[in-house]
Amino acid sequence: GYSQLARSLKGLAGAPEWPSLRALLPDVKGLRIVDLGCGFGWFCRWARENGAAQVLGLDLSAKMLTRAKAETSDDAITYQRTDLERLELPDGAFDLAFSSLALHYVEELDRLLATVHRGLTPGGWFVFSIEHPIFMASRQPGWMTDSEGRRTWPVDSYQLEGKRTTHWLADGVVKYHRTLGTTLNALLRQGFTLRHVEEWGPTDAQLAAHPELAEERDRPMFLLVSAQR
Amino acid sequence: GYSQLARSLKGLAGAPEWPSLRALLPDVKGLRIVDLGCGFGWFCRWARENGAAQVLGLDLSAKMLTRAKAETSDDAITYQRTDLERLELPDGAFDLAFSSLALHYVEELDRLLATVHRGLTPGGWFVFSIEHPIFMASRQPGWMTDSEGRRTWPVDSYQLEGKRTTHWLADGVVKYHRTLGTTLNALLRQGFTLRHVEEWGPTDAQLAAHPELAEERDRPMFLLVSAQR
Repeated sequence: GYSQLARSLKGLAGAPEWPSLRALLPDVKGLRIVDLGCGFGWFCRWARENGAAQVLGLDLSAKMLTRAKAETSDDAITYQRTDLERLELPDGAFDLAFSSLALHYVEELDRLLATVHRGLTPGGWFVFSIEHPIFMASRQPGWMTDSEGRRTWPVDSYQLEGKRTTHWLADGVVKYHRTLGTTLNALLRQGFTLRHVEEWGPTDAQLAAHPELAEERDRPMFLLVSAQR
Repeated sequence: GYSQLARSLKGLAGAPEWPSLRALLPDVKGLRIVDLGCGFGWFCRWARENGAAQVLGLDLSAKMLTRAKAETSDDAITYQRTDLERLELPDGAFDLAFSSLALHYVEELDRLLATVHRGLTPGGWFVFSIEHPIFMASRQPGWMTDSEGRRTWPVDSYQLEGKRTTHWLADGVVKYHRTLGTTLNALLRQGFTLRHVEEWGPTDAQLAAHPELAEERDRPMFLLVSAQR
């Protein structure tokens, strides 16, 4: 299951896109941060180790939060069980909203983005990763072989937004496919200014250390975005 | 060849993405406009019919410009043979830069975007379409059939930016693949503010009138972007 993934066992160090996501963050020193989909709390603890003033970690999974709490001894980190579909945040209470691979599970993205926008101070940052729509779109997401025997990734149903049910790690996990344009325009519509859009791929050094990441050069699996209120 | 395409024969009315691209434009009334890759001049004439003050149409093809001139009788439209790789524009001389399906032929995108940015007035608009990177990325761009016999589009080599040689309409046409992130970040780096990002797909009405457009729901062929200086 999920707890056996490199990113669960090793935390941020086990997530190959983390160096790129970190590069999009402002200096977290002194910031008030909310982590949407905090899982085991890796980012919450990293933020505090790097000087964040306080961190609120939110997740739907009570199981994950139990482990997050067990691995955290820091009064400036608070964990709270929350369904992002119903998220409420105090106005202007945060300088940074962070989210790693959680927003593609959210059906009502516009509602969530409006809540995050209101919850940030003017100039506050929203930095997040989601599964890339190229990765999610197809009816049968999985490598195919082209006429010359090489790996290629299928894209179809791209404009058909909405539910995608996969059987990765657990049966019947529901994700929500949105075009890249839809996600970016939803941010713009709520008043965010886009700062950076990255379709993550491995560096040469990462590829040398982890040859299996070559797949990630063929099609992007992660989309990283930074925006400011 | 190109002159037999619907968009060449019927102009803007033959380009299914035109209504979406038009929706991204500011009111052109009174604007000074430059059209990067004007082809037969359809957009230049449309802009004047809609009240533009003056339009400068630029294209590399002398043949296209000859036809553009022959079909235009309007002193406020000027056509000029120009290689976009070497584009120079007077500072702050334009209120709108427009480009339809030309920038993916440009190798030095950063240089071009810097020139366009300088050529616009503060608040001036840059609205363009290019071939979508999902459409361009693969070594073998063309429909495949999945295990259930359905149409799917291959994506590979996505992170491998640079030349793509195709044999569509003419042999050995060279285009430049860039990830969507690269194109958007290049705009941001030059100081543009992103206003809208659209991965074009047909409306229900277009699909009813042109059933062959169903393909365009499976994978986006065009990327439409609007930005402001």
